[in-house]
Amino acid sequence: MNPEQDPGNTGTGDRTARAALSFLAEPGEPGLGALLRCCEPAEIVAAVRSAREPRAVLPAAARGVPGLARAFARWRARAGQIPTAASLAAWGRDGLRLVGPGDPEWPTQLDVLGDQRPVVLWARGSADLRFACLRSVSVVGARAATGYGEHVATEMAAALAERGWCVISGGAYGIDRCAHCGALGADGISVAVLAGGLNFGYPKGHHELFAAIAGQGVLVSEWPPDRGPTRPGFLVRNRVIAALSCGTVVVEAARRSGALSTARHARDLCRPLMAVPGAVTSAQSEGCHDIIRDWGAVCVTGARDVIENISPPGDGLEARRRGPVYPRDGLDPETTAVLEAVPARSGSGPAAIAVTAGVDLNTAIRCLGALAAAGFVERCVRGWRLRRDA
Amino acid sequence: MNPEQDPGNTGTGDRTARAALSFLAEPGEPGLGALLRCCEPAEIVAAVRSAREPRAVLPAAARGVPGLARAFARWRARAGQIPTAASLAAWGRDGLRLVGPGDPEWPTQLDVLGDQRPVVLWARGSADLRFACLRSVSVVGARAATGYGEHVATEMAAALAERGWCVISGGAYGIDRCAHCGALGADGISVAVLAGGLNFGYPKGHHELFAAIAGQGVLVSEWPPDRGPTRPGFLVRNRVIAALSCGTVVVEAARRSGALSTARHARDLCRPLMAVPGAVTSAQSEGCHDIIRDWGAVCVTGARDVIENISPPGDGLEARRRGPVYPRDGLDPETTAVLEAVPARSGSGPAAIAVTAGVDLNTAIRCLGALAAAGFVERCVRGWRLRRDA
Repeated sequence: MNPEQDPGNTGTGDRTARAALSFLAEPGEPGLGALLRCCEPAEIVAAVRSAREPRAVLPAAARGVPGLARAFARWRARAGQIPTAASLAAWGRDGLRLVGPGDPEWPTQLDVLGDQRPVVLWARGSADLRFACLRSVSVVGARAATGYGEHVATEMAAALAERGWCVISGGAYGIDRCAHCGALGADGISVAVLAGGLNFGYPKGHHELFAAIAGQGVLVSEWPPDRGPTRPGFLVRNRVIAALSCGTVVVEAARRSGALSTARHARDLCRPLMAVPGAVTSAQSEGCHDIIRDWGAVCVTGARDVIENISPPGDGLEARRRGPVYPRDGLDPETTAVLEAVPARSGSGPAAIAVTAGVDLNTAIRCLGALAAAGFVERCVRGWRLRRDA
Repeated sequence: MNPEQDPGNTGTGDRTARAALSFLAEPGEPGLGALLRCCEPAEIVAAVRSAREPRAVLPAAARGVPGLARAFARWRARAGQIPTAASLAAWGRDGLRLVGPGDPEWPTQLDVLGDQRPVVLWARGSADLRFACLRSVSVVGARAATGYGEHVATEMAAALAERGWCVISGGAYGIDRCAHCGALGADGISVAVLAGGLNFGYPKGHHELFAAIAGQGVLVSEWPPDRGPTRPGFLVRNRVIAALSCGTVVVEAARRSGALSTARHARDLCRPLMAVPGAVTSAQSEGCHDIIRDWGAVCVTGARDVIENISPPGDGLEARRRGPVYPRDGLDPETTAVLEAVPARSGSGPAAIAVTAGVDLNTAIRCLGALAAAGFVERCVRGWRLRRDA
């Protein structure tokens, strides 16, 4: 997964250029998004590096992008930060990988962000980001959480993980931390979307938590590995938390909590938005009550409510009472075929599954690994079977 | 107000017959409601007292009412309970009055109950039932309330009362009690709708509370004065709580709480239905969360939310920021004219108000009394003015 491990891959040049852009531009800069609609990433990096007027070096279509001259002035001021191949290789050896649009691990649901789609994601961790997020819930809330909010976030995340759902959150103290701990404690997968570089690892007090997430799930960031977080960065990051998941739950949030910005993104993206109620005497629940009342957020009291609310019709709890049914929409045809070939109870070996699915053995093994990481299937004595609790 | 004080009133005979029917039939019996659409109350009482086949003595239209023979059999078994004129007079001296359809004090919003409309209400207390309920909120909930629910019910009722809203509830321990105490403690009006006779006064432990409600508000019941409550009676009574008010708030309710039956009536009557959220870890809030999620009850956190939700557009808090505006829709033309003539600040005497309103002095005084009881106007050094906090 090291971007330099596979220099013959046609995606590598693109990925290296995207890595360079992550050093130059701030995440979510709409000017860069507009530019990427008509230019290759490498063309933009080359234009930044050249001393010439951007309009002179970029394709003609780029000339209509507003604010181009000012954006280039900012980016050129950072041109010295563009990493060398050696730096990229060192980060790769350190366990970092780059995930960009077009990569197999790219979560295509981020494409709804349009010009504000991340240029690239820096990632660290054992889970496959795309598969994890296919069946995921964002669980967010206040840093200054109460014991009540921490209890509810932990229990909800654990219950979601036990039912095969990945939990997505930020990396902050309070609700974010409890969401990850709940999911990891239930042997689930969690995804932390950080607002600073993965090596910077803010907040420092979550060093061990981040290591645990990398061990079972995945850490991602739009910022270069050593970049520290900025206050506006947290708000920019929140659009990724909302766009990655099938739905967002706010567990506790005061009236001006940053968690409400994630909620606003979920609402604006038309993704299911939910909130946990609390005592009306608690300021830390005021934001939750506000969005239930004013934004139509669904009032949820536990993981069961959440799953009912985000599962497509026929794919929710009612369906699961009859037998396992999964959100297969996001799977590619090969993986779908392999999943269809996995027996519900008895278990079957990869070779038999490959024959049933009509794919070769290596493909079957690769797809089974990804399906297991996403919680769809599990190993058993006879090979592989569907996860009963999924 | 004693039904026998005014024997020349054409309504009296009707009211006495309705009093008799309250001894014979159970509240909410649809058979009686259907019969009252085609017969006078006195005709039904006379038919019950006669020994003849009901179809032979009732008007022809009554013959289509289903279950007529069985209903008459039940009613005739209770014919000995029909009160004498002396009993009615004694109850009148004891402070009880009868309020039936067509009476000036009848809350016409009960007419939406159709065949389940109360035949008559027994009432005791200083407030005018019709005026009190024009601007009222039902605040209901569990008997086994928590300290949280009791706190919220008390605060909400007090805040509603301070803003000139009457609080309606049952007479039970827990949330009902706190709703009354909050309203009365804020010098407001509360209406208790009991599921047994007003002299029986169930529960006995609320003897002092009921006396306080009678002093500032009004107690009402569909049952005869000495009748004890029955379990189904509480559920039948709940339709009246829902129908009397402009909206219903459930403060705390477990999954099988009787308060949810009031909520169901409010929903079925298309009246605003609201619920107070609580900790998802509290069984006493489960019913509230259920109706927010499943019935579309509005999540309210205090009196302000409640008022915003039940006030017609242009009559809510926004309007009140500009100046006093009232729900005048339910007032009769004379009372509306008197209210229009009351100055907002300076105060004006009844004679001047009568001239401005174009009514005679006695009418002006009567209307001012009723408007004061309902919280629309208040006395001041110069006479009468609009209540500022209304």
